[in-house]
Amino acid sequence: MTLSYREAGVDLAVAERIAGRLAARLGTGLFGGFLPVPELREYDEPVLISSIDGVGTKVRLAALLDRPGGLGEDLVHHCVNDIAVHGARPLLFLDYLAFHRLEAPRVERIVASIADACSVLGIALAGGETAEMPLVYGEGSFDMAGAIVGVAERSAIVDGSAIRAGDVLLGLESSGLHTNGYSLVQRVFSEADYRRYEPALGRTLGEALLEPHRCYLQDIGTLLATDAVHGLAHITGGGIDGNLERIVPTGLQATVSLPPPPPLFALLESAGIDSGEMRRVFNMGIGLVAVCDRSIQSLATERLPGGCHVLGEITQNDESARRVMIRDDH
Amino acid sequence: MTLSYREAGVDLAVAERIAGRLAARLGTGLFGGFLPVPELREYDEPVLISSIDGVGTKVRLAALLDRPGGLGEDLVHHCVNDIAVHGARPLLFLDYLAFHRLEAPRVERIVASIADACSVLGIALAGGETAEMPLVYGEGSFDMAGAIVGVAERSAIVDGSAIRAGDVLLGLESSGLHTNGYSLVQRVFSEADYRRYEPALGRTLGEALLEPHRCYLQDIGTLLATDAVHGLAHITGGGIDGNLERIVPTGLQATVSLPPPPPLFALLESAGIDSGEMRRVFNMGIGLVAVCDRSIQSLATERLPGGCHVLGEITQNDESARRVMIRDDH
Repeated sequence: MTLSYREAGVDLAVAERIAGRLAARLGTGLFGGFLPVPELREYDEPVLISSIDGVGTKVRLAALLDRPGGLGEDLVHHCVNDIAVHGARPLLFLDYLAFHRLEAPRVERIVASIADACSVLGIALAGGETAEMPLVYGEGSFDMAGAIVGVAERSAIVDGSAIRAGDVLLGLESSGLHTNGYSLVQRVFSEADYRRYEPALGRTLGEALLEPHRCYLQDIGTLLATDAVHGLAHITGGGIDGNLERIVPTGLQATVSLPPPPPLFALLESAGIDSGEMRRVFNMGIGLVAVCDRSIQSLATERLPGGCHVLGEITQNDESARRVMIRDDH
Repeated sequence: MTLSYREAGVDLAVAERIAGRLAARLGTGLFGGFLPVPELREYDEPVLISSIDGVGTKVRLAALLDRPGGLGEDLVHHCVNDIAVHGARPLLFLDYLAFHRLEAPRVERIVASIADACSVLGIALAGGETAEMPLVYGEGSFDMAGAIVGVAERSAIVDGSAIRAGDVLLGLESSGLHTNGYSLVQRVFSEADYRRYEPALGRTLGEALLEPHRCYLQDIGTLLATDAVHGLAHITGGGIDGNLERIVPTGLQATVSLPPPPPLFALLESAGIDSGEMRRVFNMGIGLVAVCDRSIQSLATERLPGGCHVLGEITQNDESARRVMIRDDH
């Protein structure tokens, strides 16, 4: 008996064809990707700010509905937001994709969506790995991870330490669930549910759920240009509460009053998801919270085109008290 | 009906406990990891060199035998080698881990092994994501990806373009299969095979297969200090042929004569894996090939403690000819 790699479940020819196309697209054929960064010499105290993440089980919903074309934006934007909230300028992105089988059209759609999302933002796609692992991923399954590296001047890093009593909390709208809470959603709904047109959403539930993660890079740039931003929180797993808590210093409290959540969230709640759990898992319509000096409140709400809400304020507080308080107005 | 996140298959409490322990270990709690890099100001033309990769289906073998403790070295060393072959000094590493279930002891062993491997090499573990995705990963399954970023002076980048006729090919021994060919291996052997003591290996087959990927960072440093290195190839998927081809310039040919492969490879071949396929998939006992000026041949074979073989040489060749020729001596 002799076994070839193909017989073992890994199709090298398909792997090489995809790798070849990607190499042509990405301009790399060596072991690592090269990015000249002459601009780093202009920083007094350069700090590399990096992050790695996936898009959770949104991959499974996209596979089920055969709509993987938004996953590139999901992955890239999630990562970009995670370092942009610290004031970093993104430099390079790397992606890891692993599939049960490398099916060329699907792999190419995903890679193209990653490359496009990087290109739009001017970020170098410095490398990627595309793996076929039938022993790890079940029939039709795949996963993706992305890593991002950016740079900031040390003195310009935003980490919440400048937050003070009297600051205002501004909330920028999300485009949907972004990339969190999809395991919970998929426990509740069936494929028929995803494919049904929902009048309240103006599209199918599946389409609303697969809306890509919004990118806040430009909005953050607008905010940072005011020199009045004291902290930025990307609202991912853990919800507004869990993520805002990461940046509010001890001794201060953020009191948050959320605007009525968009129809998608009401639909999820009406399907039986517990409202408390929803707030711990979903962004509830707010994907980014900026803690700013009160002076820029009107300027920010005017200049940020994607929807900006005044959510509350920062007050002095007992050190042992909760740092974030969500008011239950709805 | 109401559903909590736990009921949907994601145990937030376990997730938070692991995240908390990791945060304490890694010193991060924000959205991105910070790494001050004042040394970048000392480069005339700094180039960031980066790579992302997984360890293939070695994860499944480690899961099957409940021995995940070497996977950290596998992941970190694979990535380190991929940028070290270009002359990069590694700066930071990021890891992505995704599991069917977050079982604390296993997750912690893997994360500890990643952190330890980074620590030994002086690389900052700048961030990590640990995801529980029962909808994507089958019972007991998990996957891992790692991203690495390093820096090199532009003029000191090693990419094979300096390779010339008369250069000698030096091969550094591998520690086993490293992280390639595990799908093929697992098609041939059963759990009983892995657990059986193999006299020729001095241990079980499973132990030999799970031997971590060797790190060549120090050896590469020794070689680069001679100023006689013209190209370095990390032997991963594609074998010696496929990886050496990446760095040998058109118009030259590398003629390679391999030393007898270590017993592990003979055992794999005797189990029925085709020998031609083995050479395209496995490293055949050589994990790194250095193409160097002939003057350092004796110095290199003396100074590199882990086993260094003279594999062959570079000759002038017709531009249309194959750039790598493996002599079939065994």
